[in-house]
Amino acid sequence: MSPDSNPYRKDFPILARRVHDKPLVYFDNANTAQKPTAVIEAVDRFYRETNANVARAVHSLGEAATSAYEGARDKLARFINANTRDEVIFTGGTTQAINTVAYSYALPRLQPGDEILVTTMEHHANIVPWQLVAARAGAKVIPAPITPSGELIVEEFVARLNPRVKLAGVTHVSNVLGTINPVRELAKACRARGIPLLVDGSQAAPHLPVDVQALGCDFYALTGHKLFGPTGTGLLWARRELLAAMPPFFGGGEMIRTVSFDGTTFADPPHRFEAGTPNIAGFVGLGAAVDYVNRVGLDTIGAMERELGAYMTDALKSVPGLRLFGEAKEKAAVFSFLIDGVHAHDLATLLDHEGVAVRSGHHCAHPLMQFYGVPATARASLAFYNTREEIDFFVAAIARVRKLLG
Amino acid sequence: MSPDSNPYRKDFPILARRVHDKPLVYFDNANTAQKPTAVIEAVDRFYRETNANVARAVHSLGEAATSAYEGARDKLARFINANTRDEVIFTGGTTQAINTVAYSYALPRLQPGDEILVTTMEHHANIVPWQLVAARAGAKVIPAPITPSGELIVEEFVARLNPRVKLAGVTHVSNVLGTINPVRELAKACRARGIPLLVDGSQAAPHLPVDVQALGCDFYALTGHKLFGPTGTGLLWARRELLAAMPPFFGGGEMIRTVSFDGTTFADPPHRFEAGTPNIAGFVGLGAAVDYVNRVGLDTIGAMERELGAYMTDALKSVPGLRLFGEAKEKAAVFSFLIDGVHAHDLATLLDHEGVAVRSGHHCAHPLMQFYGVPATARASLAFYNTREEIDFFVAAIARVRKLLG
Repeated sequence: MSPDSNPYRKDFPILARRVHDKPLVYFDNANTAQKPTAVIEAVDRFYRETNANVARAVHSLGEAATSAYEGARDKLARFINANTRDEVIFTGGTTQAINTVAYSYALPRLQPGDEILVTTMEHHANIVPWQLVAARAGAKVIPAPITPSGELIVEEFVARLNPRVKLAGVTHVSNVLGTINPVRELAKACRARGIPLLVDGSQAAPHLPVDVQALGCDFYALTGHKLFGPTGTGLLWARRELLAAMPPFFGGGEMIRTVSFDGTTFADPPHRFEAGTPNIAGFVGLGAAVDYVNRVGLDTIGAMERELGAYMTDALKSVPGLRLFGEAKEKAAVFSFLIDGVHAHDLATLLDHEGVAVRSGHHCAHPLMQFYGVPATARASLAFYNTREEIDFFVAAIARVRKLLG
Repeated sequence: MSPDSNPYRKDFPILARRVHDKPLVYFDNANTAQKPTAVIEAVDRFYRETNANVARAVHSLGEAATSAYEGARDKLARFINANTRDEVIFTGGTTQAINTVAYSYALPRLQPGDEILVTTMEHHANIVPWQLVAARAGAKVIPAPITPSGELIVEEFVARLNPRVKLAGVTHVSNVLGTINPVRELAKACRARGIPLLVDGSQAAPHLPVDVQALGCDFYALTGHKLFGPTGTGLLWARRELLAAMPPFFGGGEMIRTVSFDGTTFADPPHRFEAGTPNIAGFVGLGAAVDYVNRVGLDTIGAMERELGAYMTDALKSVPGLRLFGEAKEKAAVFSFLIDGVHAHDLATLLDHEGVAVRSGHHCAHPLMQFYGVPATARASLAFYNTREEIDFFVAAIARVRKLLG
């Protein structure tokens, strides 16, 4: 396999690694993405040259750290085309972002009998937070169904947008199926009924241009570690008027205006929702990740991944006894599959011995597994730094594994 | 100023920096600590060699990443002498740790008229989360008073432990005054009355050996970035029986057992409280920070800081017109002060021009500022990598600043 076939591979030091004395084929990108040198060095440099706390110190390091941290907010705001930087709340990841909406937006509004509408293909991060607050309020979480090929049935989603629905949530791109959901259309239907729509963008932001204003949604969550950035970073974008109406969730330093035992007042968004010292170095790294993605270009990334995805689809379809989950017309390069008579776990374990990293399991999507009637799948998820040669090697490795198990 | 006077300075690359063309004198350690090369390199190496998601993948990188992340939990469990590793929940920092207790332990138990007891010297992180949940439950947050020298009046604290108090919270070391609170004594009084005690260890863990079992408290929170570790890391320790009785707080991946729209069940602690992808690289770095601290030794760190603290106390007392806040008998090397006729902010700004980083402001401790009747103080907070020469330079710089402003 020639690393020269993809000019971006050299930007990711880990891709030169060997596993079990074989070249690493990293096909677990939907789980977490690898980091370019530019990101690793941004974090390293921050600690060596600039490290200080933010928003609390007038000294030079404090100002430089604050400027780097708030500069990352500017970068992320532009990256998703937020209307203003104040609509971007930094969180530890998508999970914290969605939980913040659940506890701060949904919980105070939910009444007994109310509903939150999601879909059968959601990640647990876009199901369980709603279940937790729904249980407290006597409300419930309802799924909109999907087709066997893994597409949301839009009319069924829309049909469930009744007056009891106080919020809807949908993933932009399915982490199991790769399905790209028609967010604009869903947002339009929600908006017409006055129901806010939250979009889980974890799997979209690394692969598609995200324009929250054009999508027309109300909340958008994404995670940094899947976007080639550091772990422990993410964001919640929300329309300014929604944020302004949301009470604080986490209490602590830097989210207050005045604190007293007689009564405390709170800062405006985004700081109202960023209690305590944030993951400063992480967000500096996430800013560097966005710079890197912009340099490569999401158009280039998209084109490369579509080409790799088409090649992968053909390659997998040539494998006898392989069942592919997710064949939406609009899909990202995520491939869940099973092979007749082979446990997903065994497959992943044996592929690892060939140097190939795929995930096996339920992918934090139990309801989707239940829909397909399987306990687990194997999943190969691609990034733009993968190659056709890796796909060839992967498919040949599957054949060797089958022979071993057959 | 000779960096040779302290053999540990060379471990911290940022300490070689210059600010405004002067050597950096970093006296803002209570705000955030600097990072040794061992920590910076552990994070860097993780991204270059091991990066993968944890607990979700059977491939080699996934196993190595999980082992590094869970290995950090073992290190932290030993560091605070937890009874078992399962009592250590990784969080984004102290703020998230305390909010988790507020929402998951306190909120379900609070009834109208109930009280949460804290002290006047608490950081907002140990006041506001309690206020937020108390407001939801019709309960209230009560402060125990302190003396003008900055010591908690233990009998007043104990006198407030009435049957309405459902939880007490105290900082181990004050971030403004340096006061080391008698946690064992407080824990004993709380325990005798069946009231759980949460200790905010943010300012203690970098300076004192912490033994949660010997302290006898019920919850202990600390933050990684003050412990020479990466930003975006921290932990909540809690007694196993308390964790077992706490419902989940954040919903998401990896905190569940099974998810379905008919009902979801949850994992055991600690994973029940760690929804979503954690700050994996950050915790690997925090493990390296603990290794580093153990290599230096908290006895050594304590002895060096006591010696520097005594020197600093004498030096500050020689400054005419300087008012020191916090003269507890047991105190860490944290020095809040004001100088007659000089605004804290101006002082910090002018000291920065001398290369000296101190914090000015309310230090996220409004009630304490109200107690002393001042809007702000300047604060110099030391670490074991500081030197007498830096203290001499600092005091001389104060004299130059006074002349400039006088």
